Amino acid sequence: MKVADKHYRTIWLSKDGRSVDLIDQRWLPHELRVETVGTVEGVATAIRDMWVRGAPLIGVTAAYGVAIRMAEDPSDKALDDVWETLHETRPTAINLRWALDAMRDLLRKLPEAERAAAAYARAAEIADEDVELNRSIGRHGLEIIRQIAARKKPGEPVNILTHCNAGWLATVDYGTATSPIYHAMEEGIPVHVYVDETRPRNQGAQLTAWEMAGHGVPHTLVVDNAGGHLMQHGMVDMVIVGTDRTTADGDVCNKIGTYLKALAAKDNDVPFYVALPSPTIDWTVRDGVKEIPIEERSGDEVSLVWGKDEAGAVRQVRISPEATPAGNPAFDVTPARLVTGLITERGIATASADGLAKLFPDRAKADAA
Amino acid sequence: MKVADKHYRTIWLSKDGRSVDLIDQRWLPHELRVETVGTVEGVATAIRDMWVRGAPLIGVTAAYGVAIRMAEDPSDKALDDVWETLHETRPTAINLRWALDAMRDLLRKLPEAERAAAAYARAAEIADEDVELNRSIGRHGLEIIRQIAARKKPGEPVNILTHCNAGWLATVDYGTATSPIYHAMEEGIPVHVYVDETRPRNQGAQLTAWEMAGHGVPHTLVVDNAGGHLMQHGMVDMVIVGTDRTTADGDVCNKIGTYLKALAAKDNDVPFYVALPSPTIDWTVRDGVKEIPIEERSGDEVSLVWGKDEAGAVRQVRISPEATPAGNPAFDVTPARLVTGLITERGIATASADGLAKLFPDRAKADAA
Repeated sequence: MKVADKHYRTIWLSKDGRSVDLIDQRWLPHELRVETVGTVEGVATAIRDMWVRGAPLIGVTAAYGVAIRMAEDPSDKALDDVWETLHETRPTAINLRWALDAMRDLLRKLPEAERAAAAYARAAEIADEDVELNRSIGRHGLEIIRQIAARKKPGEPVNILTHCNAGWLATVDYGTATSPIYHAMEEGIPVHVYVDETRPRNQGAQLTAWEMAGHGVPHTLVVDNAGGHLMQHGMVDMVIVGTDRTTADGDVCNKIGTYLKALAAKDNDVPFYVALPSPTIDWTVRDGVKEIPIEERSGDEVSLVWGKDEAGAVRQVRISPEATPAGNPAFDVTPARLVTGLITERGIATASADGLAKLFPDRAKADAA
Repeated sequence: MKVADKHYRTIWLSKDGRSVDLIDQRWLPHELRVETVGTVEGVATAIRDMWVRGAPLIGVTAAYGVAIRMAEDPSDKALDDVWETLHETRPTAINLRWALDAMRDLLRKLPEAERAAAAYARAAEIADEDVELNRSIGRHGLEIIRQIAARKKPGEPVNILTHCNAGWLATVDYGTATSPIYHAMEEGIPVHVYVDETRPRNQGAQLTAWEMAGHGVPHTLVVDNAGGHLMQHGMVDMVIVGTDRTTADGDVCNKIGTYLKALAAKDNDVPFYVALPSPTIDWTVRDGVKEIPIEERSGDEVSLVWGKDEAGAVRQVRISPEATPAGNPAFDVTPARLVTGLITERGIATASADGLAKLFPDRAKADAA
């Protein structure tokens, strides 16, 4: 997407043809820093220290990490080692493991002399596949926005609320929840986005707001507390969020606070959509509230807030008493009954076992087995 | 309530018998600063610049402001002038006007020579009346906590979630929503409080957490996003919040985000109580969502966060892009259907016209007329 009229992806091959350039997202929204990373150690740091985040983007970054290693040393040992090194950076990230496996399976079959070139080609392909997946999600979601726009007065924007960052910064381009929004922009449909701040890590305020500002999408930052009030007063036409994991029955695990917005949407007849690439569906789990363990992160994420001070320095401030402990569950589960639809790359499914199985008959059977 | 084992009120007569001492709440939770204020200008500044906040406390502070003026000049003109000066500091605060009227009505009838002494006596009385009101709320709310505790295993705490600060810092002592909690502590009932951060002004993180820490109430700070997840997992036994204005039909206007917690409580069968002194009931309004105008405050409250930096200095940091506008509705309305009960100084009412009229037959008729 665009940043000040220039098109960016989150990651791309450097001019030297060996390294990768990527946006170091730790400095957003205060500074756009592009780093060139040319070693496996550099790639591992970028993933581990969250220069890049978002499941799809982590996968692509790791794929380039494997390519970088193959250019140095295409041996089986180097391939195994790079798999290990990168896998350890974020061991619970599904896409990371998937991308590393895909690279290793492909490269092992090839003669050493062909591995580097094949690795760079496959990494680029994985990046392009991600963009294509998100484009498909965007086109399906666009239909919903188009229908809402048709009921509005000419020029009146479609008001969309989103939570956290399921934007292009979490992927290679377009994003998942944001893809329908960017597609609507491209079609000239007026949209306006309410961006939930998304405490405690403020991904809305720091990343989604920056994306929207950069691409020129009219938007308003609001605290996570505000959405219910906005919906009570008819100020939100639809909600679109992303998901970290969706169950076979359509329960949606996503950033903490998503469930509260889904409740408010239901209470006010506002459609609540979840955008997801199908690899996010976990066919082995049904009841999300009961079965999905929720990561409890450090309380410091709640007590300490990052921002830019008056002098332009990015620093942390403590907002609560030293003596006060903080709890920090990172995700919650929105039951399928609160979800209007799941926007996938194959179309829109109802949030139910039937709805998902209809769109993905192949995977529903194979993966649940 | 206690701060490090010493009992405090938010405001009290200074040792000189003329000035007032008050906690300058702008420095909490980082520093406990008590200021002695001996002039009307000083009192006006303390109210206007929010050294003190919370409707009851503002009223008491203003009453002392009138007394300070009467000690300097007990004339009718001085009385009218101080009314004007203090009324302008927070023109929409109901208790402020009520306290100023009460003082003026009383003093005007008295000879000038008696006014100063009568003013100090009445100001002290208004403060004591507030404490008594909150004690009554606490005793009624205590009953609910006692019943929940009776169903628990011995030693297992009653988990209470609260939003914003309806604590002793918003009143003279005890607070409204916190009063049942402090009363339960006094009775030896084990309690644990989940303190909602309460963005954007962070009254939970800054004030409620500080109160709890000072008085020794076990508590955990959580982001506003977390409450739904906690309730889904049985970690909250009841919610108690305060209110800025409750309608004759039992709709509750309170800090933004209260409605979302009420929805989650309903969805998970968690009792949702609102603690309120009866002067907060607006008998002239029925449908809170339709009839109560919601104050839209500066977007800077969302974009800029106050806290203490590594060096101990209290400063502001910006968390969002400069180009991103922020919306900041300050309150929302929780419909009566989501409220389990209204804890008043006369007992617990169901959140309905009938429920309120039964407890306040006198006022329901008089004020609605």
